[in-house]
Amino acid sequence: MFDRNYPSIILQDAVDELSSLPGVGRKSALRFALHLLKQPQDNVERLGLSLIRLSKETRYCKLCNMISDSDTCDICRDAKRDRSVICVVESIRDVISIESTMQYKGLYHVLGGIISPMDGVGPSDLTIDQLLKRVETGEHSEVIMVLSTTMEGETTAFYLYKLLNKFPVKISTIARGIGFGDELEYTDEVTLGRSIQNRQPFVPLKQ
Amino acid sequence: MFDRNYPSIILQDAVDELSSLPGVGRKSALRFALHLLKQPQDNVERLGLSLIRLSKETRYCKLCNMISDSDTCDICRDAKRDRSVICVVESIRDVISIESTMQYKGLYHVLGGIISPMDGVGPSDLTIDQLLKRVETGEHSEVIMVLSTTMEGETTAFYLYKLLNKFPVKISTIARGIGFGDELEYTDEVTLGRSIQNRQPFVPLKQ
Repeated sequence: MFDRNYPSIILQDAVDELSSLPGVGRKSALRFALHLLKQPQDNVERLGLSLIRLSKETRYCKLCNMISDSDTCDICRDAKRDRSVICVVESIRDVISIESTMQYKGLYHVLGGIISPMDGVGPSDLTIDQLLKRVETGEHSEVIMVLSTTMEGETTAFYLYKLLNKFPVKISTIARGIGFGDELEYTDEVTLGRSIQNRQPFVPLKQ
Repeated sequence: MFDRNYPSIILQDAVDELSSLPGVGRKSALRFALHLLKQPQDNVERLGLSLIRLSKETRYCKLCNMISDSDTCDICRDAKRDRSVICVVESIRDVISIESTMQYKGLYHVLGGIISPMDGVGPSDLTIDQLLKRVETGEHSEVIMVLSTTMEGETTAFYLYKLLNKFPVKISTIARGIGFGDELEYTDEVTLGRSIQNRQPFVPLKQ
């Protein structure tokens, strides 16, 4: 056996770091590392530097909290988008999924998570205040909540509904074409696109 | 839709680079990138630099071609290893797999691939000359060929057998406990360990 399981400390470090990626175990991490060893150094350097840049240079839109190369994202700056509607989502990934359906032309608001007491995520960890300030301007007449149909998604929707209900905005939610417990990320584009078009007024569950 | 499918060029670059990893599609690459965005910058920098170091600073053992932190690897330097036996394998990964069985105490020789005319890999692309020079010294009395039981593995074993047969060494091969067409990498440790212990004299197929 090798010290620390691997024949080289440099390889060991790379495997340790790669296995921190989501869903990547030590076997896959080793596979990645050995693959990189066979690649030209320039390619591997480009990969390494692209990750460092991603972490250090990425900025977020000051309006909607979307990832962006400048202070305001492409969507918030786009004069062709329908500024009357804000689509509230959990994460950047959801914006990318919805944009790929090409069915939605309004604005977004990225919460940066959902309310999940089990994971220690409360309302103050999300960009809810920022959302309320946008709604307060009166510029937007509708808020569509596009959140996963999980317990946490429903809780977050209900919490937002209570706050948004004080403003003169229409509050809608994604059409229930998506099975309970399904993750937005894995929904096919047709279903996701339809369910935004067929959005329905939000009716809170009796609690 | 965003320019180039993603909302930020920095994110786009990271996804492009990550999807060059084996078995990683664009969805997984995006998942990795968004995960890294949530991590502390120091952690991501450590990951990026570890990959660059892996590519730039890794060295290979001048005897067995194994990855190493110095000119000679830990195994070749280890006085407790049985220097009479050389185990010939395709890749670094195979050495790691065999070491993890803790059943083998001899030396290794990493070929750096197997003969595969379909992939344009011929004998001269492998470290076969280096292996013959080691056998020529007369220091080693047995060569065990531990190659995948695929067409390419069998071809390589037969090619090596013809060359090694000129020297006074015993030539053995891994016991056939492993199904034909199986990859060494996915064999469980018990089977792999047993099959090295129960190694058999190499009998070439009639061709």
